[in-house]
Amino acid sequence: MISERCAFAEGDVICIASTIISKAKGYTRNLDSIIAGEQAMRIADKTGEDPRFIQVVLDQACDVLIETPFTLTQLPWGHVGVRSGVDASNVEDGMIITLPPDPMKEADEIREEIKTIAGKNCRVIITDTCGRSFRRGQTGHAIGWSGMAAIRDFRGDHDLFGRMLEITEEAIIDEIAGFANLVMGESNNGIPAVLFRGIPSWNGHDNLYFNPDEDIIRKSLEKSENGSKTEPYSGRK
Amino acid sequence: MISERCAFAEGDVICIASTIISKAKGYTRNLDSIIAGEQAMRIADKTGEDPRFIQVVLDQACDVLIETPFTLTQLPWGHVGVRSGVDASNVEDGMIITLPPDPMKEADEIREEIKTIAGKNCRVIITDTCGRSFRRGQTGHAIGWSGMAAIRDFRGDHDLFGRMLEITEEAIIDEIAGFANLVMGESNNGIPAVLFRGIPSWNGHDNLYFNPDEDIIRKSLEKSENGSKTEPYSGRK
Repeated sequence: MISERCAFAEGDVICIASTIISKAKGYTRNLDSIIAGEQAMRIADKTGEDPRFIQVVLDQACDVLIETPFTLTQLPWGHVGVRSGVDASNVEDGMIITLPPDPMKEADEIREEIKTIAGKNCRVIITDTCGRSFRRGQTGHAIGWSGMAAIRDFRGDHDLFGRMLEITEEAIIDEIAGFANLVMGESNNGIPAVLFRGIPSWNGHDNLYFNPDEDIIRKSLEKSENGSKTEPYSGRK
Repeated sequence: MISERCAFAEGDVICIASTIISKAKGYTRNLDSIIAGEQAMRIADKTGEDPRFIQVVLDQACDVLIETPFTLTQLPWGHVGVRSGVDASNVEDGMIITLPPDPMKEADEIREEIKTIAGKNCRVIITDTCGRSFRRGQTGHAIGWSGMAAIRDFRGDHDLFGRMLEITEEAIIDEIAGFANLVMGESNNGIPAVLFRGIPSWNGHDNLYFNPDEDIIRKSLEKSENGSKTEPYSGRK
């Protein structure tokens, strides 16, 4: 459907809202079919949410960083998000929508499909709307990508005065995903995909997610009473 | 200088890197003129940085959230950032550059100046490059703004199926600042300002920064041993 509506050119960056991928692929759960377990009951009792909803949140997660006042979890592919990115907006009643279980694979597949249908080598970002620490409001983030590195790596570069740089790794895919989110709008705007043309390529790497040992904020959360570690997370899969 | 190089139109959003504002206004410190105090000596001893550099970081801060392995501070106007946003890149040797002490005032002033020089009513965002929790790499963030609300407020809106939305506040200025940062580049690219045309207006509010009581991550940090609270922060000034 996107290929029918876009005239792709070489190197285009297409940002796609994770919601429509989850809908198209059926990454949804019917609330009626879910039986909440003990941990979900306990958390829901504190947050005032539907225990079945919390059960879906826990089903997606490999680790729970915070239980209350909102559930902050890590997903098996590395992403840390509120309520595992599970959402009951913009989906039919009684259904809840989960993030794709392997967003990198989805991005690869979409990139391949565009190549097949349109004959163009494009770059793909799958976006989700996420909160941030220390700042109110959500912004668009990249949760899957293909055809580009997540992070532009400036390490070893010099500044205008010839000294080594202090800012060395730029999460470009999140900067693109954020602006795509603005164009998509939330609410009832319903724009599911945004095309960027003319973004140059860059060198870098895909290590967007910290290992728990490197993640200072996370280590601090684990020391505090909010944390409720369920199982160790062993790095990006 | 920006007005000489841009043909502004009504409603344009101009993003300006905080670095060039600090340089133009002299928000810099000479390392030779700084005497490190006891707290700066103690932190520098742990991080291996120049104690005089840490002293400047502390001079900017109203609160220290984390001391090591990097200093995470809050600035009096609400922003939480690594090393108070103090930077020794892209400035002459021996000088360090600090964030503007009142970025909202700077944004207001620039907006007024553009109105006077170009006769156009523009929107202004002052950007800085910041790290994030749980994700590697820095992205552009808004630290000052004028002529628009920081956050688009969807509260009370309905989704495509007529139910109340779960995502309700979008930090649009950070989404614009992020993309501006991509266009600016870091390193030796040296693009200090980026003009956006055609961004619609939105309704919202300016409460970009949490009060400490609402900030769950921050409260958890304060409970952990990393936190080193110096004085209470009483909300955005």
